[in-house]
Amino acid sequence: MDLYSGHINKLIDELAALPGIGNKSAQRLAFHLINMPQDKVTRLANSILEAKANVRYCKECYTLTDREICPVCANPNRNHRLIMVVENTRDLAAYEKTNKYEGVYHVLHGAISPMLGIGPGDIRLKELIERLKGDVEEVIIATNSSLEGETTAMYISKLIKPAGVKVTRIASGVPVGGDLENIDEVTLLRALEGRTEM
Amino acid sequence: MDLYSGHINKLIDELAALPGIGNKSAQRLAFHLINMPQDKVTRLANSILEAKANVRYCKECYTLTDREICPVCANPNRNHRLIMVVENTRDLAAYEKTNKYEGVYHVLHGAISPMLGIGPGDIRLKELIERLKGDVEEVIIATNSSLEGETTAMYISKLIKPAGVKVTRIASGVPVGGDLENIDEVTLLRALEGRTEM
Repeated sequence: MDLYSGHINKLIDELAALPGIGNKSAQRLAFHLINMPQDKVTRLANSILEAKANVRYCKECYTLTDREICPVCANPNRNHRLIMVVENTRDLAAYEKTNKYEGVYHVLHGAISPMLGIGPGDIRLKELIERLKGDVEEVIIATNSSLEGETTAMYISKLIKPAGVKVTRIASGVPVGGDLENIDEVTLLRALEGRTEM
Repeated sequence: MDLYSGHINKLIDELAALPGIGNKSAQRLAFHLINMPQDKVTRLANSILEAKANVRYCKECYTLTDREICPVCANPNRNHRLIMVVENTRDLAAYEKTNKYEGVYHVLHGAISPMLGIGPGDIRLKELIERLKGDVEEVIIATNSSLEGETTAMYISKLIKPAGVKVTRIASGVPVGGDLENIDEVTLLRALEGRTEM
């Protein structure tokens, strides 16, 4: 479609290549950006470049952070012997928002997926094994409850159990506030299997 | 939420301020941007800045374009005596994609909305009146079929009819392929009123 001419088309293409942004949203965004005041546009473009330039992996847990060591790992009040393994920084953030978890994290940056050709070597597993050489009491596997997440959980558990570390998996079941009739059968069965005494 | 630290938070905030991007999508996008290769990040940031710097309004129809005069207005094969009035450049693009419209456009960049405090002086109406001083045969009003779009259509029609220009409005009715049972009453009534003989 050549009606928008060069610069607009280029911007639309770049935006549409981002995840979760289809062609329609890319168009809407592009026109919004063009109509935004110059200082806001400059600020957005700089935020992108600066975040890219300054954000790195935490040396301990591999989450994305501005510093050498992320705020969680740098906090002496956290229990550093309790490691929760998550797929990505957003999952870490989700647990941090609960304000209840006292341990630290390990961010894999992905999950094992034979379908997508992602093997154990493509996620931060080696780094997890390295951390287990220190004083670790329990590893909580909090990968997603998807096929990939479960595969990864199983793999990790088999890998580190021999080292004598306690390995646990977060529960799956009916979400709080969830309406049973809208929940898929697999979840319902999981909730049944995982039932606890009242 | 301070877990992401400065640069990431700033980027998330900037992204979440864009239309149609909520806080969750902003987080997903931010992490995607940070994980993207440096050259792609630079290219995206530059596309934004370049589009902002180089895109301007067409001197005739006020659509957004790279040039003085947009490709449609510059095309001598289009009927310049037939002007379709649209709310924005995306609507122009929608009609261009049909490949059937032979006339030119006039882009208002908005619609009259007393609710949002947008009056006739805030959209490109003066410029439309100016164009009508030339040789114009028909003005087709193709503003949206929303309250604002209808108000704008009515206002324009009253404004330019006295000048002796033919004013038409695009039809509203049941969309092609639309299932009657899923269509709201107002549209159904419109379709009934606008029925044509077979």
